[in-house]
Amino acid sequence: MAQFMDVHHGMRGITEDQLREAHEADLAIQQEEGVHFRQAWADPESGTVYCLSEAPSSDAVQRIHERTGHKADEIHAVPLRV
Amino acid sequence: MAQFMDVHHGMRGITEDQLREAHEADLAIQQEEGVHFRQAWADPESGTVYCLSEAPSSDAVQRIHERTGHKADEIHAVPLRV
Repeated sequence: MAQFMDVHHGMRGITEDQLREAHEADLAIQQEEGVHFRQAWADPESGTVYCLSEAPSSDAVQRIHERTGHKADEIHAVPLRV
Repeated sequence: MAQFMDVHHGMRGITEDQLREAHEADLAIQQEEGVHFRQAWADPESGTVYCLSEAPSSDAVQRIHERTGHKADEIHAVPLRV
C-alpha cells in the first residue's frame, strides 16, 4: 500500500490531548476508506501537524480527515523511504 | 531527547539511491552533533523530503544537513506524538 505524509497548518497551541483526540477520530473511521494512519507528530509552536499513513490514495486520506473535521493542507505520496 | 521533523523542498525527481546516499551521509556524521536521524521520506513528484530525528536542538540537525550539502528549509520540533 502507498504511504502518504499529510500536513496541517494553523494548529498553533495544539495540546497532546487534542492531537490524540483528532488521531483517534481518524482511527475510528479509517477502515471505511482502507486507510491506516500510522503516526502523527505536532509542533504546537508553529501549529504544524504531520500524519503518516498507508492508503489507497491521497483522496482516501483526505476524505477521512475531512469527515473528522481537520482537512489536510497538503498530502504527499512518499514512495521513497530510508 | 527532543524529536524534530525537517523538510526539504526543491528535490523534484529525487531517486531512491539519491535519498539513501543523502541519508547515509547524514548518518555518517550525526554523532558529532548528538543527532540520530530515524527515518526519511521523499515525494519525488513535488520534490519534498521529510526527515525525522532525535536531537539536542534544531540547530544541531541543521548543522549536520548543512555539512552534507542539503540544508533543511524548515525544521520543526515535534514534542507531541501519537
